[in-house]
Amino acid sequence: MAFKGNLLYAQSGGPTSVINSSAYGVFKAALESDQIGQVFAGLNGIQGIMENHLLPISQSMLRKYSLLLQTPGAAFGSCRKMLKPFQEDESEYKIIVEEFKKRNIRYFLYNGGNDSMDTVKKLSEYFKQIGFECFVIGIPKTIDNDLAQTDHTPGYGSAAKYIATVFSEIAYDASAYEKGRVNIVEIMGRDTGWLTASASLARLNGYGPDLIYVPEVPFSRERFINEVKKVYSLKNRCMVAVSEGIKDREGKFISDETSLDAFGHKQLGGISSYLASLVSKAGLPSRGIELSLAQRSAAHLASLTDITEAQEAGEEAVKDVTSGLSGFMVNFLRQSIKPYKISLGLAPIDKVASVVKLVPLEFLEPTESDVSEAFIAYALPLIQGERKYKTVNGLIKFYEE
Amino acid sequence: MAFKGNLLYAQSGGPTSVINSSAYGVFKAALESDQIGQVFAGLNGIQGIMENHLLPISQSMLRKYSLLLQTPGAAFGSCRKMLKPFQEDESEYKIIVEEFKKRNIRYFLYNGGNDSMDTVKKLSEYFKQIGFECFVIGIPKTIDNDLAQTDHTPGYGSAAKYIATVFSEIAYDASAYEKGRVNIVEIMGRDTGWLTASASLARLNGYGPDLIYVPEVPFSRERFINEVKKVYSLKNRCMVAVSEGIKDREGKFISDETSLDAFGHKQLGGISSYLASLVSKAGLPSRGIELSLAQRSAAHLASLTDITEAQEAGEEAVKDVTSGLSGFMVNFLRQSIKPYKISLGLAPIDKVASVVKLVPLEFLEPTESDVSEAFIAYALPLIQGERKYKTVNGLIKFYEE
Repeated sequence: MAFKGNLLYAQSGGPTSVINSSAYGVFKAALESDQIGQVFAGLNGIQGIMENHLLPISQSMLRKYSLLLQTPGAAFGSCRKMLKPFQEDESEYKIIVEEFKKRNIRYFLYNGGNDSMDTVKKLSEYFKQIGFECFVIGIPKTIDNDLAQTDHTPGYGSAAKYIATVFSEIAYDASAYEKGRVNIVEIMGRDTGWLTASASLARLNGYGPDLIYVPEVPFSRERFINEVKKVYSLKNRCMVAVSEGIKDREGKFISDETSLDAFGHKQLGGISSYLASLVSKAGLPSRGIELSLAQRSAAHLASLTDITEAQEAGEEAVKDVTSGLSGFMVNFLRQSIKPYKISLGLAPIDKVASVVKLVPLEFLEPTESDVSEAFIAYALPLIQGERKYKTVNGLIKFYEE
Repeated sequence: MAFKGNLLYAQSGGPTSVINSSAYGVFKAALESDQIGQVFAGLNGIQGIMENHLLPISQSMLRKYSLLLQTPGAAFGSCRKMLKPFQEDESEYKIIVEEFKKRNIRYFLYNGGNDSMDTVKKLSEYFKQIGFECFVIGIPKTIDNDLAQTDHTPGYGSAAKYIATVFSEIAYDASAYEKGRVNIVEIMGRDTGWLTASASLARLNGYGPDLIYVPEVPFSRERFINEVKKVYSLKNRCMVAVSEGIKDREGKFISDETSLDAFGHKQLGGISSYLASLVSKAGLPSRGIELSLAQRSAAHLASLTDITEAQEAGEEAVKDVTSGLSGFMVNFLRQSIKPYKISLGLAPIDKVASVVKLVPLEFLEPTESDVSEAFIAYALPLIQGERKYKTVNGLIKFYEE
């Protein structure tokens, strides 16, 4: 089935703290594989590949590549490029095939989220249709944890660990005064509440959220104010975790922001300031806090479980693609919750692409503006462990070309 | 000179990542001292002390207290209380003296920033005037680094380490796309630019700010836009570090926010969103990022140098106060920049209270919107080292009563 050829790996979409750990896993496995000739990293995803921006990866640099295990961002550059359906416009596909042929690329691994899995789907289908022998596998990556057909996604555990840790630190700090404020912590998540739900883990540290609002549960301003007032009257303070993407009953974003990103998605943000102003108007001292970009880039606090699994997903992808499999995404299957046990598998890409996995009802307590014990049991193993990272000048050391 | 009596320690003002390390230093040294009978922690600063909220500290709990070395916030509660001049109103002073006499408090250590040092000054003067034999020493604490008569303040190094680390992680993340944004990172600092300047240390990691704006240098919107455009045209991206408290030539805050905190200080914030909107109007993609409360509470990334020095400041204060010294603040004197060498000393409290130490001109490059090499040499030693902290459930473990 399989044959000797070169392998190309590229990154796409919003970075995470551990996407580069998957790159390391790919390089390590691919450099060891008999079936692979040369290994390349594409720069800036499919966009850069079309412009022939390929970087040779060599065995002699493996020690330097190990810094990828502690480097945030997308070390090989990312892009927001989506391919049109080839049934409508074949031109970009032809460029890609030409570039692949030039470099004898027979294995292509694409590391990204929902939109990137759409590219995996289209390319694998196109290659099959035209009879071009190149195998394509997707490696999942998103802090949002919203990919279908997988227990969780690499990147989520590290974001959750950062959110839970910083939330508990802020909550401890906020408990200093006898009469505290209503602190409203805004957490990433346009469509799903996975990240916001992870703030609940801070409770295991004694200082967590009193109220949790996610996009899966319709948001009512009136109910929000009532719930905040109730907590404040009991505790003299209140910690709120809220998703940037909360919506009302009609599905309209509470945030007013309407600018669009390159994919035509709404760019949100600022919901914490807005809710803080509502609380202030209701007579309680309040403050909006955004956790912002550190949620996806705080490599210094990455979960060791997440780093390890991201690397394993990269290794698995090499094994699968060189077995001649194409049109799949590597996925995680939970064999056991306690003790935590995961196995790697493959999901057909058409069951993944463009599907958004919401937080299921059994993980939520909607009437309490909270998450359930089942969610805690699900998420807790994902934030375990810390990497003893290399430093320079008192700062975490990054991989650099 | 000195005599046997009890010691009281309390915390005041905004917490830092290491104020509790000073508490640990105080407890350790005080429990070992022959001159001290009982050791107490006051709860919620001078406010709680007036309400008789004192907690006995015991030798048998020292192991539990060691968690203070990794606990953010103010573990014994804080307050924003300032005493009126006793020449105007003696009533609160009388309550304090009564409480102190009841508990035989002869040594009082107050841990805080500018406003807390004002309390140290007033109490030490009052006690002297009425002939009450109680010695008072201040232990410095503020992430702002704006206390006079000391090389730096405990709390600053940890905040600087968090800011530099997260700035470099965000900057690395932001370099993922071929065409990036103008990221405007808002950093704490109402009156001084010490914290914002520390973002420059991220450059030693390869990914730092292109432009730095501090309150010490009058801010011009026009010049800002020109400088951002210039960087963007060269790099296709731009990283800005800006203090929340930047002011125009007339000394007016650029931020419009006018709500007042309990001390009557202006509450700032939101400057990054405002500047991002200016940049967007000028035609460049932009995003405002607030580092927010994690700057002062991210104990998981505290500087080991800072933790150690904060503890030493607490120990030094016990030594000094039991020598019969009163009306001083423990200070840090830099003996040598390279190698970094610090000694502890005492500053007369009237030279500290209500004085704000600005970033000096030799640490700035105002025409470049930057800091100088001298600043880097000054600040770099303060962020060195990481504590191998204890964890529970994948989270940093806190001290709890």
